[in-house]
Amino acid sequence: MPEADRCEVPATIVIFGASGDLTRRKLVPALHSLACEGRLHPQTHLIGIGRRPFADQELREQLFAGVQDYARLKPHLCALWEDFAVRIAYLQGDYDDPDTYRHLTRRLQEMEQKLGREPYRIFYLAVPPQLFPVIVEHLGQAGLHRGGEHKPRIIIEKPFGHDLQSAQRLSAQVHAVFDESQVFRIDHYLGKETVQNIMVFRFANSIFEPLWNRNYVDHVQITMAEKIGVEHRGAYYDRAGVVRDMFQNHLLQLLTLTAMEPPSAFSAKMLRDEKVKVLQAIRPIPREHGVWGQYEGYRQEPNVDPQSNTPTYLALKVYIDNWRWQGVPFYVRSGKALAAKTTEITLQFHAVPHLLFPESTELGPNRLSLFIQPNEGMLLRFQTKVPGAGMRAEPVDMEFRYGQRYGENILPDAYERLLLDAIQGDASLFARNDEIELAWQLVDPLTDGIEPELYRRGSQGPRSADAFIRRDGREWLPIVSRSGVEAQHND
Amino acid sequence: MPEADRCEVPATIVIFGASGDLTRRKLVPALHSLACEGRLHPQTHLIGIGRRPFADQELREQLFAGVQDYARLKPHLCALWEDFAVRIAYLQGDYDDPDTYRHLTRRLQEMEQKLGREPYRIFYLAVPPQLFPVIVEHLGQAGLHRGGEHKPRIIIEKPFGHDLQSAQRLSAQVHAVFDESQVFRIDHYLGKETVQNIMVFRFANSIFEPLWNRNYVDHVQITMAEKIGVEHRGAYYDRAGVVRDMFQNHLLQLLTLTAMEPPSAFSAKMLRDEKVKVLQAIRPIPREHGVWGQYEGYRQEPNVDPQSNTPTYLALKVYIDNWRWQGVPFYVRSGKALAAKTTEITLQFHAVPHLLFPESTELGPNRLSLFIQPNEGMLLRFQTKVPGAGMRAEPVDMEFRYGQRYGENILPDAYERLLLDAIQGDASLFARNDEIELAWQLVDPLTDGIEPELYRRGSQGPRSADAFIRRDGREWLPIVSRSGVEAQHND
Repeated sequence: MPEADRCEVPATIVIFGASGDLTRRKLVPALHSLACEGRLHPQTHLIGIGRRPFADQELREQLFAGVQDYARLKPHLCALWEDFAVRIAYLQGDYDDPDTYRHLTRRLQEMEQKLGREPYRIFYLAVPPQLFPVIVEHLGQAGLHRGGEHKPRIIIEKPFGHDLQSAQRLSAQVHAVFDESQVFRIDHYLGKETVQNIMVFRFANSIFEPLWNRNYVDHVQITMAEKIGVEHRGAYYDRAGVVRDMFQNHLLQLLTLTAMEPPSAFSAKMLRDEKVKVLQAIRPIPREHGVWGQYEGYRQEPNVDPQSNTPTYLALKVYIDNWRWQGVPFYVRSGKALAAKTTEITLQFHAVPHLLFPESTELGPNRLSLFIQPNEGMLLRFQTKVPGAGMRAEPVDMEFRYGQRYGENILPDAYERLLLDAIQGDASLFARNDEIELAWQLVDPLTDGIEPELYRRGSQGPRSADAFIRRDGREWLPIVSRSGVEAQHND
Repeated sequence: MPEADRCEVPATIVIFGASGDLTRRKLVPALHSLACEGRLHPQTHLIGIGRRPFADQELREQLFAGVQDYARLKPHLCALWEDFAVRIAYLQGDYDDPDTYRHLTRRLQEMEQKLGREPYRIFYLAVPPQLFPVIVEHLGQAGLHRGGEHKPRIIIEKPFGHDLQSAQRLSAQVHAVFDESQVFRIDHYLGKETVQNIMVFRFANSIFEPLWNRNYVDHVQITMAEKIGVEHRGAYYDRAGVVRDMFQNHLLQLLTLTAMEPPSAFSAKMLRDEKVKVLQAIRPIPREHGVWGQYEGYRQEPNVDPQSNTPTYLALKVYIDNWRWQGVPFYVRSGKALAAKTTEITLQFHAVPHLLFPESTELGPNRLSLFIQPNEGMLLRFQTKVPGAGMRAEPVDMEFRYGQRYGENILPDAYERLLLDAIQGDASLFARNDEIELAWQLVDPLTDGIEPELYRRGSQGPRSADAFIRRDGREWLPIVSRSGVEAQHND
């Protein structure tokens, strides 16, 4: 195992929102899998903070149930849960009560005294966004933003702001206490193996990068389609809509990773500098370059306003004004209640410049697809000779599937990667302040005041999205399931 | 079915060497499969000529046995054998007896009178090469080289000459009777689907051609390895050796198709012009750029000279002096009694210019392989992220297999394609005079007077072949079976 993948220093992880869904479904299962694989230092401790009364043992049992349900590595495959469980403690308290932070300070000191060395301290804000400033401020007042040998780190869940203005305000509040170097803003998409692989695929191979530009690429399609509707998240979703839920964060991350220049080193600074350069180069998107939709029945979902105009679908045409991408449209779309669950990036290349084989009057263009999830992998569509029939060509696919190569359940959950990186202080896969603000600046004009077109559940989205891309002489790739088994949960 | 794949005019095919192996194993099974698929005109006739006495019915039975054993489409899958069989006639005669040709003329006239129209006439020389000039001269004396509406065509089997001088002499003899436009020189490799697909792959896709040159390709390897030794062909092989048996024809064909510029149209002339340009650009190959081998036990094979120095293995480094390929070595090798049967072309690309991921201290280069036979298909080797382990990359393969896509037994035999093309007068997949002479000119200095190094049966070839390529800082790709099932017969 490479050194970078094992913590050499113990960590103390403080989770605000210990009894919440995120902790139970994602954070603790991820820590468990990391522990099972020996990636955490054996003296790693967890302190959960929440408002509900719990004994330590109760919290452990609740978290263990979450591990059983959600962890990649199931508890019976790993004898380490008992080891790990005894290092979980619970601290009850209100987030706006200074006592909570005094108690926390004392607990941390006790633990660290026993350790005999200074661990990495991580504060994880797994709470609703309105609590972010409250907790940050109290941490500062308690002096918990300061470290000795190591500076503590704070991990902030999304959403980071609701628009540009609120993001800037939150930023100021956070920076009043923590240095930017201590702040880790989660976009869990960046923790996905296949998202990181966009960079490996582009920059560890010599044959793709020469084709990865306006000379060879006709256009790019990025699709994040969900099959489910808003389910129990109506109250949140109706305020957010597809733009805040998907575009401002995940979709723009996929876009920047696809479009960016190769950084000269794989460091947090250089990588994020390159991503910011892409965001800066995106031409402001006029409303005519978008199609907004809302699935039929959305207004009847629980906790959704019966007159809601919140879009559940958006397709945009994005231009990047730089040497590499000038004139190449990026068609990006995301929606709920569509035909299938799939996240994919496809580069469609120009047609061949000269038709050599008269029997093939039209040759489909080459396409390179990266399947982010589910059924992670890549696909190259190219033309080959039809057996026997003169010199006629037809498209065939060459495929690579992670599951086939590495087996199932081998891809770590995004949170495993991100927690490990945060503990070790590598911010490469976290969003930087300027990135987030540029993203808000781009999408702010696209969020409100547009009446969405209704579309059928399980369809390809609103009808006018088809007309929209056809005006450019192009077609959407169909939203189809890429795997036999539809993924069970939505992430 | 495209029109180009069905004969609209009946043909009369005259095979010299009707009782020989080639006729039984290849030609008649190929005609049978074409007939089954409705690609031959229903009034196509076959006249077999040979020295042995046969009744028509006897010949038909012998040929039917061959169809049962060797045809791609088995007789029970096709009700057309009876139809086809009644149109097979036998004509006994010596090849150097003018009477044979008088009888042939009469038979042709009788047949064609019944038809009421002029068919295409094809003469197929499936006889030992010393008989080529004899038959050609007699055909000329009998006036059979002349046609009415259509000029007769002559198909000449390999080898076309034994060296440059004999090839030029044979050419003169053939041209004394037939125009070049009537002459179809078989290199059955050109009839293989996967060999034709080299062109489709290159010129029906927009993404490979930009990489297909010295800017991106480090070197090319072309391997034609056989597992079997000389078996019952010792007498022929000991005179030919690997250079005449494989290099002068098949290997140089694969090399020219891999290296050539895109022709501006897919016509016999333009295609062969481009191939000739490659042969003209090949730098004369010094003996230091070759390694000759002979497998242990070769001298004890039946009908082989016990002191024979005939090479059964040759590896060459070939340079093509033009803008596209300057400085890119083509390592080409062929041998008998090697570790596996495989014919493949691999382009190895340059390493990435800059190592972005410090955990991967060495990234294997990208490779694109075309598997000509067996287990026909393509493979692209590229780097992808190792799940979970930092940003470490490792090579994985993306594959396309004809068999998986189209099912087994779908690839027509090379002779099916070539016979159909010859009947229809398309010479694209046949070798032109100047091509053959240039090929001889290249290999003539490499055929004789070299003592080959012994190598073990079933090995990768002579030891010094490894040292040879390592001096350039490169490695041979291993000769391994690409399929579960080793192909049964050697072609």
